[in-house]
Amino acid sequence: MAPKTVLIVYAHQSPSSFNAAARDVAVQTLTAQGCKVIVTDLYTMNFRSAATAADIKGNLKNPEHFLYSDETFIAWKEDRLSDDIKEEQRKVTEADIIIFQFPLYWFTVPAIMKGWMERVLTQGFAYTPESIYDNGIFKDKKTVLSFTTGGVESMYLPDGLYGDINVVLWPLQNGVLRFCGFQVLAPQIFWCVADAPPSERTAMLEAWRARLKGLLDEQPLSFAPTKLFDLSLQAGFRLRSDMKEAYASQPYGLTTGQHLGKLLPPNNQTKASPNENH
Amino acid sequence: MAPKTVLIVYAHQSPSSFNAAARDVAVQTLTAQGCKVIVTDLYTMNFRSAATAADIKGNLKNPEHFLYSDETFIAWKEDRLSDDIKEEQRKVTEADIIIFQFPLYWFTVPAIMKGWMERVLTQGFAYTPESIYDNGIFKDKKTVLSFTTGGVESMYLPDGLYGDINVVLWPLQNGVLRFCGFQVLAPQIFWCVADAPPSERTAMLEAWRARLKGLLDEQPLSFAPTKLFDLSLQAGFRLRSDMKEAYASQPYGLTTGQHLGKLLPPNNQTKASPNENH
Repeated sequence: MAPKTVLIVYAHQSPSSFNAAARDVAVQTLTAQGCKVIVTDLYTMNFRSAATAADIKGNLKNPEHFLYSDETFIAWKEDRLSDDIKEEQRKVTEADIIIFQFPLYWFTVPAIMKGWMERVLTQGFAYTPESIYDNGIFKDKKTVLSFTTGGVESMYLPDGLYGDINVVLWPLQNGVLRFCGFQVLAPQIFWCVADAPPSERTAMLEAWRARLKGLLDEQPLSFAPTKLFDLSLQAGFRLRSDMKEAYASQPYGLTTGQHLGKLLPPNNQTKASPNENH
Repeated sequence: MAPKTVLIVYAHQSPSSFNAAARDVAVQTLTAQGCKVIVTDLYTMNFRSAATAADIKGNLKNPEHFLYSDETFIAWKEDRLSDDIKEEQRKVTEADIIIFQFPLYWFTVPAIMKGWMERVLTQGFAYTPESIYDNGIFKDKKTVLSFTTGGVESMYLPDGLYGDINVVLWPLQNGVLRFCGFQVLAPQIFWCVADAPPSERTAMLEAWRARLKGLLDEQPLSFAPTKLFDLSLQAGFRLRSDMKEAYASQPYGLTTGQHLGKLLPPNNQTKASPNENH
């Protein structure tokens, strides 16, 4: 395998956390494979989360009616985005794969990581109206969500209290990542780390280490191919009717909850908290 | 109807935005009904998004291994949360209904609003392991997500490119809001405001005004009742098997994508952008 560049976007406040350990395992394992590994440590950097006019250098085009995505699109074209955004965009451009490492906070990424997504994945850089999903700008890059949860795995089964983990992750995996074209690998989920004894934590980290050795060669999750959709305003960007029957039996399905990634096999594991800290 | 207190948590950078107009319509209509209306204007306040140790006054209990939800739980019990969090918690306590007014950014709330959720809805104040969903702390309060989208409505149908809006909103509506016990009203969605001519924008605002007149008396969305679940670690917090058949025909359903709120009736309205700014 040719050496690759890996970007780890990391969000935890504590260097002694399980998330920090998972980050370190990734840095070690991938560096040992000859990869160049770059880490964006959001809390340590005090990364700004709010999408504001401060992200644009020079004059705004329409200061009376500030629209963030319009203004950042223009600023991207004219190389007038703020230095912190440009630095992150440079890392994304260089990366072959991005690992997001975080504790699940309220069923999604922490606000500071959401801020990274909003501010770095600007229009023009990360997508255009024509370049999305299978035609997306980052279609040659891979990505993986690697996170800890407060709840046990069974809470995230289709009949679990929190609902199917694939539904929970849909806005992130299909909404943010697939939208920009990324090949989305199966998420790396560290279930209920809070209640796990040290031996189990070690086992979880070793499983991650083992997976990392082949991570760059993994096949992405299955989502409904973009060609199944009629990408026109007249047709409403909906599934092509002539395609529905042919694809109905595919693993991603075509009904409510639909064109989801493949379901993950259930494992085993404890607690009711939407926030995870380890 | 007895006078009520309404909290509007608002996130848009521009006072001339459609979101600002939607906020103003709510303030006017509800004030005219005798309600007390409080507005939290996140960007104007420079509301901090990142969940850090700065949210806790005095000493941390475990500074060597900082865990945000544990530390804020202790700080909440000891009245040592930061002043900005305490002020927002005071507003939540007073409110009978919370309206979240925002542009949909990457299929969820803007980072600054996610930061409000993370920092204000702390353990102890907003939930305990025993007090969640139908038994949640805020079960006597209502809430509604009111937002603008970049995409047309058909993109958010079950066979649309973005997937079912109920799936997109699941982590917010069932994950954050229902988790804390809120009665979740049907979302108020302003589709594709960017491409709407002024007359259509006016019509959308008037429809919101009309809805607001009866908003406080609306029935919440249907989600699977918490009593359907076996809330024990042994049973894994899954649907009770003796309940599955009896409830299978209910509108929220029991399969993948499952215990979702009722589907919204499709309307009519243009564009491929995950971010909306108006």
